[in-house]
Amino acid sequence: MQHDGPLNHLIKMLGGLPGLGNRSARRIALHLLNQRSSLMLPLAEALQRAATEIKACTTCGNLDIHASCSICVDTKRDSSQICVVSQVSDLWAIERTSAYRGVYHVLGGLLSALDGIGPDQLNIAGLITRAETQKPKEIILALAATVDGQSTAHYITDQLDSKQLQITHLAHGVPVGGELDYLDDGTITTALRSRK
Amino acid sequence: MQHDGPLNHLIKMLGGLPGLGNRSARRIALHLLNQRSSLMLPLAEALQRAATEIKACTTCGNLDIHASCSICVDTKRDSSQICVVSQVSDLWAIERTSAYRGVYHVLGGLLSALDGIGPDQLNIAGLITRAETQKPKEIILALAATVDGQSTAHYITDQLDSKQLQITHLAHGVPVGGELDYLDDGTITTALRSRK
Repeated sequence: MQHDGPLNHLIKMLGGLPGLGNRSARRIALHLLNQRSSLMLPLAEALQRAATEIKACTTCGNLDIHASCSICVDTKRDSSQICVVSQVSDLWAIERTSAYRGVYHVLGGLLSALDGIGPDQLNIAGLITRAETQKPKEIILALAATVDGQSTAHYITDQLDSKQLQITHLAHGVPVGGELDYLDDGTITTALRSRK
Repeated sequence: MQHDGPLNHLIKMLGGLPGLGNRSARRIALHLLNQRSSLMLPLAEALQRAATEIKACTTCGNLDIHASCSICVDTKRDSSQICVVSQVSDLWAIERTSAYRGVYHVLGGLLSALDGIGPDQLNIAGLITRAETQKPKEIILALAATVDGQSTAHYITDQLDSKQLQITHLAHGVPVGGELDYLDDGTITTALRSRK
């Protein structure tokens, strides 16, 4: 294998993707080269097509081929509820449950002092504008139960304080199917305190 | 996420690659979409370039941008030794050791009654032709220590029986750095029998 050839270049690019290392990148590259016309070229085309066609929804930040995403334009969804998530993957996770019929707002990350991410890097201004114009009844903060997630939730709550709306959080507690023995102390303490 | 959109199509294609599932494919797709011009489009281009430029060496089956690979044309390599491997990845694994200075022959798989792979699907005829024309002194069968690998080795040995050459196998035994306690019985038995 030449160290500057197209194969090595491809393996290096694949190996830099999240969750992939050198060995899995080599394996994928060989797998693709064995099926060039049925897999490798279609994958290249799918990448190119997705890169040009997929846009972020101008309202909520969800990814779609239209400027207004399918959730925002769906009249069956309850636009009086806005669920605030950090990433599009969180939106997908909630959509998979089919338990939520409101709309979303994707922040594009979480406030993080360590990574130098401030409110201006996130789509918080868009959320405040929506709270003013769209006048939702409830804003659900579905953010991670981490320091960054909680400080982002705190900041948003602060910013929306003067508006006439209800701000809710996801419940913390024992995951469904979870065994107490394997849970950390923090979760058990929270679950005990919020007992019903 | 639309179920027939370009994003879902991309995630499905990525999720079909070896070692990747649905969740990792989603993660990779989002990672790529966040860096379209710096990562996603270059990756599509690298895939296309590799698919068109990389060929199998007409002599040994190694992958290269030339019809004769860099190992086959390298005059410093000893063409009297041919190392027979199943896949290009095995060739790479041996090359990484820098312990071998001969040339290679890639079969493109192993004989397998279960998967219906016979001698005609593998590049065994090419090996026999090389044994006749190139007149190597030694053929090293670097095939997996599995049933398929050993039956392939047996078949090749049979086919090359009449030629004036030495056929060798990789040694079996305890892996370097391996603890006896974690090894299977077969390996320990072989290592004991081949003790030096």
